[in-house]
Amino acid sequence: MRAQTDHPINDLLAQRWSPYVYADRAVPEVDLKSLFEAARWAPSSYNEQPWAYIVARKEDTAEFERLLSCLVEANQQWAKHVPVLALGLARLAFQKNNKPNRHAFHDLGLASASLCVEATVRGLVVHQMAGIEPQRAREVFNIPEGWEAAIGIAIGYEGAPATGEESLRQRDAARRPRKPAKEFVFGGSFGKTVPWL
Amino acid sequence: MRAQTDHPINDLLAQRWSPYVYADRAVPEVDLKSLFEAARWAPSSYNEQPWAYIVARKEDTAEFERLLSCLVEANQQWAKHVPVLALGLARLAFQKNNKPNRHAFHDLGLASASLCVEATVRGLVVHQMAGIEPQRAREVFNIPEGWEAAIGIAIGYEGAPATGEESLRQRDAARRPRKPAKEFVFGGSFGKTVPWL
Repeated sequence: MRAQTDHPINDLLAQRWSPYVYADRAVPEVDLKSLFEAARWAPSSYNEQPWAYIVARKEDTAEFERLLSCLVEANQQWAKHVPVLALGLARLAFQKNNKPNRHAFHDLGLASASLCVEATVRGLVVHQMAGIEPQRAREVFNIPEGWEAAIGIAIGYEGAPATGEESLRQRDAARRPRKPAKEFVFGGSFGKTVPWL
Repeated sequence: MRAQTDHPINDLLAQRWSPYVYADRAVPEVDLKSLFEAARWAPSSYNEQPWAYIVARKEDTAEFERLLSCLVEANQQWAKHVPVLALGLARLAFQKNNKPNRHAFHDLGLASASLCVEATVRGLVVHQMAGIEPQRAREVFNIPEGWEAAIGIAIGYEGAPATGEESLRQRDAARRPRKPAKEFVFGGSFGKTVPWL
């Protein structure tokens, strides 16, 4: 379902959305490679590339369970059916001088957005989750100090909800609204809409 | 110049880069509208959309100068030639309950990455800058508490450096390297490369 945009945007962005229902279909390795390659080429502050991903495929059952356990309960309910789960990690300090990198989370966002575009190109869908347990992830995956688990990422193919999953279907059907651009694109002063919008 | 990728990624991502030299050519309003529309449709934690942009076009001289003054000196040197400058702002707390939004910067990154993809589609180039003066931006643009200027964004067309701009040319020529994916895509434990890479 294409986003109902006020101004034209390209299909890769307009078709992107975050479903809760995934098909029981594995993601080929060749696609996974390209997804993380896409993340790799994102820009970052001082080219620090302050991101890392921990990835688990459903067929690697034990690994998958460990990763699933780092999501909050509400996300585990639907994410257990997803063929590939990942955690996105940010490095909070610069490698060269250990000073705080104010843009670590921001730049992880740039990288994950690139991953998401590449996924759309390949017919995959991605659902990013704020609802994770960073401290549990640290213990389970030996995440060192200075790095932090920021988000969960579900990757797979959109599916049709099975019987008994009507609540998931409803969540999928509720396409989320967006503020109009006039409410967040300003000129001259915060809150003042630009004349060209 | 296409990125030298280890695995195939789509052209919109592979061709994206952050130049320092821009052509003296205005960006049509229709394109600007679509750039920020693209940002609008990015996903965000709880659909909070915790981003805003302050935008100035070069032809609006006074506005442009004010925005330029919020960049660090080194960025002002090249950004003064850019046709459109923007600041990307993040809202640090959730609107509904004022609790800290850990993902505000992350989600601004998602939005700006979408803007960047739409720019590439339209033959535009985008250079994001960590080097800004957030406190000065707060004063100049009346940015309220709870919001924070996170990044600067230069938008325009790639240009050929003029005489005397050889240092800019050299910076443009130095395409930045990337860590191999094996160094940031892990499985089972932080630092352990996944078998499929």
